[in-house]
Amino acid sequence: MRITGRTRIMFILADAVDHIVGSHVLNEAFERDGLDIAVSPLSVAPSDLEAMVGMIRKLGNVAGFGVTIPHKSVVARHLGAVTPEAEAIGAVNFVRRDEDGRLTGHNIDGEGFVAGLRASGVEPKGLRVLQVGAGGVGKAIAHGLAAEGVRSIDLVNRDAARAASLGTAVTGRFAGTVVRTSADIADVRETDFDLVINATALGMHAGDALPVPEHFIVEGATVAEVVMRPAVTPLLELAAARRCRTIPGSAMMEPQPALVARFLGLA
Amino acid sequence: MRITGRTRIMFILADAVDHIVGSHVLNEAFERDGLDIAVSPLSVAPSDLEAMVGMIRKLGNVAGFGVTIPHKSVVARHLGAVTPEAEAIGAVNFVRRDEDGRLTGHNIDGEGFVAGLRASGVEPKGLRVLQVGAGGVGKAIAHGLAAEGVRSIDLVNRDAARAASLGTAVTGRFAGTVVRTSADIADVRETDFDLVINATALGMHAGDALPVPEHFIVEGATVAEVVMRPAVTPLLELAAARRCRTIPGSAMMEPQPALVARFLGLA
Repeated sequence: MRITGRTRIMFILADAVDHIVGSHVLNEAFERDGLDIAVSPLSVAPSDLEAMVGMIRKLGNVAGFGVTIPHKSVVARHLGAVTPEAEAIGAVNFVRRDEDGRLTGHNIDGEGFVAGLRASGVEPKGLRVLQVGAGGVGKAIAHGLAAEGVRSIDLVNRDAARAASLGTAVTGRFAGTVVRTSADIADVRETDFDLVINATALGMHAGDALPVPEHFIVEGATVAEVVMRPAVTPLLELAAARRCRTIPGSAMMEPQPALVARFLGLA
Repeated sequence: MRITGRTRIMFILADAVDHIVGSHVLNEAFERDGLDIAVSPLSVAPSDLEAMVGMIRKLGNVAGFGVTIPHKSVVARHLGAVTPEAEAIGAVNFVRRDEDGRLTGHNIDGEGFVAGLRASGVEPKGLRVLQVGAGGVGKAIAHGLAAEGVRSIDLVNRDAARAASLGTAVTGRFAGTVVRTSADIADVRETDFDLVINATALGMHAGDALPVPEHFIVEGATVAEVVMRPAVTPLLELAAARRCRTIPGSAMMEPQPALVARFLGLA
C-alpha cells in the first residue's frame, strides 16, 4: 500500500473507532484489486458530524466515506442526495463524493447480501424466502432480494408493526414480490422455503434459541446468516447436518469492497 | 500497513496534492519502525484551511498533520501554540494534536538538518559555518545549527535585509553563536570553513552557477546541500573531487519520520 497525492482517500466515520477493522478489510481488498484507494477511520462525535461532512465536500482528493455507528441513520440529512436503497432502508453506510463536492449516500448491504448469495451459486430470482428479523440489515436484505425478483418473502419480526412497515415499503418499490409479514413464526404455514435467512442477532451468544424452528431447515434449502461471530452458528450447523447449502454472515461482507469501489466510480 | 481504529491518523495538508509522496515516505518509515500511524494527503484550498484545522481539533484519533505549500506560513494563526523553532522560522511543517484537541505547530527542518549531519558523522558544536541562502529552509538550518552551538555562521543572501534579519533572530535566541551577514560572498574573507552549506536552489538546473566560489571548497571541510534533485549537484561533485565530506540534500529528510513521530509523542 502506497499512499501518495494521487491516491483517492476514503474515511470511515464512527464515534468510538477502537473496534474498527473495516478500513483494513477495504484497504486489503483495494490493494489486491490494484486500486489506489486508502481508507482511514475517523473518530467523529455526533455533534461534529455535520461539520465533518461539510468539510469532506471541500477535500478534492477524497472519494467518499463509510459511515458506521452512530451516524448511519442521521448522516443522510447532511448529504445532497441518497440512493433509493438508502432512502428505503433509512440508513447510509457509504457516501460518494463527486468531483464537484456533491455527496450521495448509499446503503450497500442489500447488494452485498445478493452478491454473497451469487458467490455461493444461489440466484435469487424466483425464490421463496423466509426471513426473520427486520432491523437495519434485515431491511437492506429484503429490499435487495425484492430488487432481484424473489417470488415471495415471508417476513417475521417480533415487532409486528416493524415487519408490516418493511413489507409495505418493499412491495411499494417492487410489485413483483409477494411479502407476507408476521410477528410470530408459528403463523408461517409453508415450510419448504428455498432460502431461509436469519437477520437477527440470535446465534451470537452461547445458549441463544434458534432463530427459526427446525422444521424450516429442510434438504434443498439454502440457509443464510447475518451473524458473523461465530462463523458457524447453531443454525448453520443444523443446516449443514441437513444437507442445506449454508451461507455464513461473512458472505455479505466479502463483496463489499468491490461494490464500494464501483459505487465510488473507482472500479 | 494495517489501518484500523487503533491506528493514529495523520494528514498532510496541501492545496494541489498530485505531486505529494511525503505521505508514502512517512508511512514506510513508520511501518519499518513498527509504529501504527497512517498518513494521507488531503487537498485543502487556502480558504478552507481554518475550517479543516478546526475540524482536526475534534477528530479524536488524529495525531497531527504535516503542512506544505501553500499553508506553511499561514497555518500558525489557526493553532493554539507554536514551538520556538516554528515561531523563529515563521513557518510550520508539522502540527501535533494533543488528546484534548490542542494543536501545536513545529518546524522540523532545522532538527532534520542537524540529525542528517550527525548521521554523516559531523558534530555541529563549535563548527565555523558558511551558509548561502536565507530562505525558508535556510532559516531553519541557521536556527538549528545555532541551537547546537556552532561557533559562527557566515550567512550570505542576495537580499541583505533578509540575511541581517535572520542573523539578528538567530543571535537573539542563541548568544553563543557569532553570525556575520552579507549580501555578497566576495565580502567573506575567511576561506577555511568547517561546514559549507548551500541553502539556495542553485544546482537544481543544468548550467546553474556554483552557489559558492571554488576556493571555499577545501579538503577537510564538510559540504552540505539542500538541493535534492540531482542527488549529486555540481557543488557536491567538486567537493567530492577535493576530498571534502559531502552531505546530500536527502540527508536532512531521512531523519524526519523519526523526528515527527517523537514530536507527536508516538515514539
